[in-house]
Amino acid sequence: MDVDKALIHSLLATASRAATMGNMQLYSVVETRTAEGKERLAPLHFNQPMVKGAAVVLTFIADFRRFTHWCDVSDADAGYDNFLSFTNAMTDCMLFCQNFCTLAEEAGLGTCFLGTTVYNPKGVIEALQLPRLTFPVATITVGWPDEDPAQTDRLDISAIIHEETYHDASDEEIKSMFAYKESLPENKHFVEVNGKTTLAQVFTDCRYTRKDNEAMSDGMLEALQQQGFLQCPPSTPTH
Amino acid sequence: MDVDKALIHSLLATASRAATMGNMQLYSVVETRTAEGKERLAPLHFNQPMVKGAAVVLTFIADFRRFTHWCDVSDADAGYDNFLSFTNAMTDCMLFCQNFCTLAEEAGLGTCFLGTTVYNPKGVIEALQLPRLTFPVATITVGWPDEDPAQTDRLDISAIIHEETYHDASDEEIKSMFAYKESLPENKHFVEVNGKTTLAQVFTDCRYTRKDNEAMSDGMLEALQQQGFLQCPPSTPTH
Repeated sequence: MDVDKALIHSLLATASRAATMGNMQLYSVVETRTAEGKERLAPLHFNQPMVKGAAVVLTFIADFRRFTHWCDVSDADAGYDNFLSFTNAMTDCMLFCQNFCTLAEEAGLGTCFLGTTVYNPKGVIEALQLPRLTFPVATITVGWPDEDPAQTDRLDISAIIHEETYHDASDEEIKSMFAYKESLPENKHFVEVNGKTTLAQVFTDCRYTRKDNEAMSDGMLEALQQQGFLQCPPSTPTH
Repeated sequence: MDVDKALIHSLLATASRAATMGNMQLYSVVETRTAEGKERLAPLHFNQPMVKGAAVVLTFIADFRRFTHWCDVSDADAGYDNFLSFTNAMTDCMLFCQNFCTLAEEAGLGTCFLGTTVYNPKGVIEALQLPRLTFPVATITVGWPDEDPAQTDRLDISAIIHEETYHDASDEEIKSMFAYKESLPENKHFVEVNGKTTLAQVFTDCRYTRKDNEAMSDGMLEALQQQGFLQCPPSTPTH
């Protein structure tokens, strides 16, 4: 079922009330509605079915280009081609993105956050024709939901909060924090079907492996350089 | 006026319903309530008065340490000491942070986002005793507001949204997008008191300069290496 364009734009306008550094609004959104557009994006997100299946795909872009362009036409020397500026733009963009998700769900829409956006940023940059000083950092698929799934588990908030300084947990405290997660039937099932002995191994050996993370780190740093946010290539790590 | 600790913890628990990569919850929060703690943080935020003046200061931490520690005690080889993993943790943390701000304001609290957290991360790391695989990415001051300020301006949402591919604006389009901002009396005043000819120059020459951005980029990359998220120092840029 279609999602009205005016509704999406209205939600994005309200979302732009999020905090933004110096009110520079260092973000853009590319709205993908055509079948061709979704087909270009789908493989970059490992063909997860929501990309082609959702009414709208929104790619959230950390964007220092618009502001830099304004400086360029205003006789001002913009110095935003560096890593701190990328970090500031990514921050602005994520606050805006989460605001949008909250507003969308409040309006009855369903959203799915695709973390795969930074796995192959060069592909997304090419597909969406993203110029220098822009970088894709998040993708949200949006549609009218036809299910109402149960909430997933979360750690007790005491595992997250530290009073005054960081409390480095003991081994026993860590085991206690994750005990509930490990006890869930669906997680025991994951361990079994993957032939592992612990749930953590499902993460380290199957879902988020060192080899993949290191290769994708290199790709992301190269893409940051390509887009003008890193002046020099980072030294090649010796894995 | 004090802000009840149970209220803050309850809001943080609800905020943790934000999307999180693989349900890894890659974030922590350090809650600063003591005068000594606020005094340690204040200079790191350029002595902006809200740090000492707010009831509570929350520093949001991109955190792969807790998850890595769980892997360590679970016979699993955690491969999260790399840049992609920092990016994932920063993303998780920002979604959680914005959710908290929305919930806090809904509860009648006032919040202020301090972007200065990444300006001197090494100082924050030392003040809060942040261990390897953690990194401070945002600071929120929280209190009961005694004022209700007017909303600041935002660009028209059409400047933010791109259909199907990125639309690289023309000079005229850029001028038109920023015309309203430039027309505001407070912004004309900024131009005048700073002795500039355009509003953009107030940003590039006074507020967010190339020199500061480049120095802080180096400091942030060094801090990322120190905390274990970059394996090798980035090549030194030749400014």
